[in-house]
Amino acid sequence: MAAIEAVLNTIDANLDASRERLFDLLRIPSVSTDPAYNAQCLRAANWLKDQLTGLGYAAEVRETPGHPIVVGHAKAKRKDAPHVLFYGHYDVQPADPLELWETEPFAPRLTEGADGKDIVARGASDDKGQLMTFVEACRAFEANGGLPCNVTFLFEGEEETGSPSLPGFLAAHKDELSAPDLALVCDTSMWNASTPAITVMLRGLALEEVIIKGPSHDLHSGMFGGPVLNPIHVLAKIIADLHDIEGKVTLPGFYASVPEIPDDIAEQWRAIDFNEAKWLSEIGLTRVGGETGRGIIEQIWARPTCDVNGIIGGYTGAGSKTVLPAQASAKFSFRLVGKQDAKAILESFRSFVRERLPTDAKAEFISHGASNALQLPFGSEALNRARRALAEEWDKEPVLAGCGGSIPIVGSFKRDLNMDSLMIGFAHDDDRIHSPNEKYSYTSFHKGARSWARVLHALAAA
Amino acid sequence: MAAIEAVLNTIDANLDASRERLFDLLRIPSVSTDPAYNAQCLRAANWLKDQLTGLGYAAEVRETPGHPIVVGHAKAKRKDAPHVLFYGHYDVQPADPLELWETEPFAPRLTEGADGKDIVARGASDDKGQLMTFVEACRAFEANGGLPCNVTFLFEGEEETGSPSLPGFLAAHKDELSAPDLALVCDTSMWNASTPAITVMLRGLALEEVIIKGPSHDLHSGMFGGPVLNPIHVLAKIIADLHDIEGKVTLPGFYASVPEIPDDIAEQWRAIDFNEAKWLSEIGLTRVGGETGRGIIEQIWARPTCDVNGIIGGYTGAGSKTVLPAQASAKFSFRLVGKQDAKAILESFRSFVRERLPTDAKAEFISHGASNALQLPFGSEALNRARRALAEEWDKEPVLAGCGGSIPIVGSFKRDLNMDSLMIGFAHDDDRIHSPNEKYSYTSFHKGARSWARVLHALAAA
Repeated sequence: MAAIEAVLNTIDANLDASRERLFDLLRIPSVSTDPAYNAQCLRAANWLKDQLTGLGYAAEVRETPGHPIVVGHAKAKRKDAPHVLFYGHYDVQPADPLELWETEPFAPRLTEGADGKDIVARGASDDKGQLMTFVEACRAFEANGGLPCNVTFLFEGEEETGSPSLPGFLAAHKDELSAPDLALVCDTSMWNASTPAITVMLRGLALEEVIIKGPSHDLHSGMFGGPVLNPIHVLAKIIADLHDIEGKVTLPGFYASVPEIPDDIAEQWRAIDFNEAKWLSEIGLTRVGGETGRGIIEQIWARPTCDVNGIIGGYTGAGSKTVLPAQASAKFSFRLVGKQDAKAILESFRSFVRERLPTDAKAEFISHGASNALQLPFGSEALNRARRALAEEWDKEPVLAGCGGSIPIVGSFKRDLNMDSLMIGFAHDDDRIHSPNEKYSYTSFHKGARSWARVLHALAAA
Repeated sequence: MAAIEAVLNTIDANLDASRERLFDLLRIPSVSTDPAYNAQCLRAANWLKDQLTGLGYAAEVRETPGHPIVVGHAKAKRKDAPHVLFYGHYDVQPADPLELWETEPFAPRLTEGADGKDIVARGASDDKGQLMTFVEACRAFEANGGLPCNVTFLFEGEEETGSPSLPGFLAAHKDELSAPDLALVCDTSMWNASTPAITVMLRGLALEEVIIKGPSHDLHSGMFGGPVLNPIHVLAKIIADLHDIEGKVTLPGFYASVPEIPDDIAEQWRAIDFNEAKWLSEIGLTRVGGETGRGIIEQIWARPTCDVNGIIGGYTGAGSKTVLPAQASAKFSFRLVGKQDAKAILESFRSFVRERLPTDAKAEFISHGASNALQLPFGSEALNRARRALAEEWDKEPVLAGCGGSIPIVGSFKRDLNMDSLMIGFAHDDDRIHSPNEKYSYTSFHKGARSWARVLHALAAA
C-alpha cells in the first residue's frame, strides 16, 4: 500500500488538473428532468465511464428505463482488501431561472467566496463536485501503486427526479452490487466550513391516513346539532391525546426502542456551534417546542415524532356553512429512530385510534408507507476509522450528525442490498444547490479528495 | 265580536269555495328563483292583494329590488283590539324534476292520502295552503261582523331565495309594520297528523372561524419535525378541550343563561310520540350523543351546542406530503338558547382559544355572524291563549316545540321590529315540500282555518 502521504501529495500536486476534469464534467448540462437534455445525460455518463476506464477499471454505461447508470469495478492491490461501493449522481437540477445567474450555469469558473475560492456552476456541489472528490482520490492511489480497497462505482442520472430506475436496477444487479462491505455516499454537507461531518443516522418514516366516519351523510347543524356525533371532534380528541404535556408521544411502547444518545455524542452535540435562536427565528419562532428539555439538534437527529401533516373535514370554503360532517380525516406521520419498528408503531397507532372511537364512530386507515430508521452503529469499526481519518485531515473531530429526513438511496442500499452507508460530504449549507449561482468550496473539493484518500486508507488498515 | 261558533260554521260551510280559491292561487307558477316566472310572481302578489281588498281591507302590491311584497291592513270592530301581523309567502320552489310528478305541479287536485284527503300541487304546503288558512279565517270573521284583532298582512315573494329584499323593506316601513303586538307566522309543521304544535323557541347561532398560525411558512417534517410547533396539534387540542367527558361545552359561563325546561314542558316532551332509535337510524347512528342524560328532542330544541363545521390544515390531497403546516383553521358554530348572549359567548370563546396558545402560536378570528335565541316565554299570555285555542280545535294539547335551526324572518321581526312571533303551522313532515308531488292535508287546510279563527278570537278575548 502506498504511504498515504504520497497519495495526499499527489492530490495536492495535481489539483489544477483535477479541477479541469471537474470543469469538463460541469460543462455537460445533464439536466435529468427535461427530455431535451437526454443526450447530455448520456454524455455525462459516458464521460464518467471514460474516467473509470482511463484509470484501468472495468466500467460500463448501463441502460435503464430512464437515464443510464454507470457501473465500475476497481480491484485493490491486496487480495483481502475490503470492498466498498461508492455512490454519486451525475444529473443536475435545471438551471432556471437563468436571469439570476451571474455567469453561464454550465460555464464553470472560480470565484472568491466568503470561505475562500468557490467553484460556481450548476451541479458544482450537487453532486458533480462531491462525486469527483472520490474519483480524484482513486486517481491519486493509482499513481501510487493502486487502491487500498476494492471499489464498486455506482453513478446514477436520475437522483434529481426521484431515482425511479434505481430500485429496479439494484434488484436486477444484486449480486454484482451487494458484495461490498459498506456503501460510501458523498451527497451530504459539512457541519460548517471548517468542521467535517459524518451522517450516521437517518430517521425512519411511517405514514398513515385516518378517516373518521360518523353520520351516514352531512347534516344540518341546526336540525341535528347536539345529539349527533361530530367526526371532527372525535379526530381532534385523538390528535390531542397523542402528545402529553411534556410533548412526548403517548402511544404505548413508543419509546421502548428509542436509545438515549451515548454521552460522548451528546457532549459533542452540546459543544457544536449551533444557534437555536437563529434557527428558530428563520422559521418565525422563538421557543424550542416538542419534547421538554431536549434541544433542536437532538430532537431532529435522534428523537421520534408524531405529526399531523394534513387535516380536513366539513366545510372549508369561504364564509360559513352550518353542517355536521359525515367524516373527517387526517394524515399522520411518525419519524422513527433507533430500533423502532415502523409496522409495530402503525399497529399501535391503529389500536390507539380504535380505542378512542365513541359508539357509532368508525375509523378507516390508509397506509402511505413505512420505513425504519437507518443508523450506522456509533461504535462500529468503519465509523471509528472514518472519524479518525477526517479528524486528521481537518484537524477537527467530525460531527456525527443525524438527518431528520430520509435519503432514499441509503434506504435502498439497506433494504435491497443489506448494506450500511457511510455518508460523508463536503458541501456547505450555503452552496445554493438547486438555486442560481450554485457553488462548491474549492477547499471542499481539494480536502474532500484528501479526505476520501484518508478514509479509504483507514478502512483498509490492518 | 261574532260568537266563535258562527265563524267556525261559516268556515265549514264555505270549505269548497275556500279550496277553489286556494286552487286558483296554486295555479299561478310563482317560482321566485327563475326570472322566467317574474310575471307569475307579480300575478300571485296581485291575486293576494285582490283577496284582501275583496274583504274590504286596504292592500297594496309594493315594489322591492326583487319580487313585490303585499301589505294589507284590516281594522278590528273593537277600538282596543290587539294588533297582529300575519306573515306568509306566495313564492314557491321550482317544480323540477317534472318527470317525477304524477300530475302537473301547477294543476292542483285532491287525492286520497294516508291521513285523509290531500291537496297536491307545488306550494300546497309551502306556503300557499298555510297562508290561505289565515285568509279564510279572516273571511269567515268578515261574514260574521268583522275581525276580533287588527291585522297587518305581509306576504313576501322571495322566501325561497333567502328573502333578500325583506330586511330592507322592514327597515323602510318600520312604523307601518311594527305597530302589532305579535307576529303570526304560518310556515311550520304539526307534531303529527292529529297533534298541533306551536314553535316557541328557535336556537340562536354564533359563527366564528379560527386560524392558528405557527411557523412562518410550511416546513419539511423530516428536517424540522420535533422541535417545531404544529398548528394542527394546537387547534386539535382546543377542539378537544371544548367538551368535557359528559358532552358539556367547557367555555366558562356557557350554561349560566341556559334555563332548564319547565317541568310541565319537559313532561310533555317525554310523553310525545318520538322514536329516538328511528331518528338515529335514519342518519346511520345508534346512540344519542351530546350531553349525557339528555334526549334528542331536548338537546335539539332547548340545549346549546358547540360544533366544528369545518377544519383544514396542511396537505389534504391524495397520498402523503411530509409537511409541517404554517397554519390550520376551523369553523366553529354555537347554537344558543335561553338568554345566552351570542357576543359574550364569542368573547369567551376567543379567550378560551388564546389561553390555549403555546408560545409562538397566534390566533386570528373571523366572525361569520351572531344571533341570540328567540323564545316566546313559556308563561306568556298570548302563548297560553293560543295553546287553549288549538287544544279546543284539535282536542289535544299542542306540543310546544323548539326548532334547532334559525328561521330568518322570525329573527328579523325580533331584531328589526322588536316583535315576538307565534309560529303555528299545519304542515305534515311528509308533505314533500321542495320535492315532487308536494301535498297539503285537506284536514290541515280546513282545521287550520278554524284554528286561526280560534287563535284570533282567543287573542282578543277580554
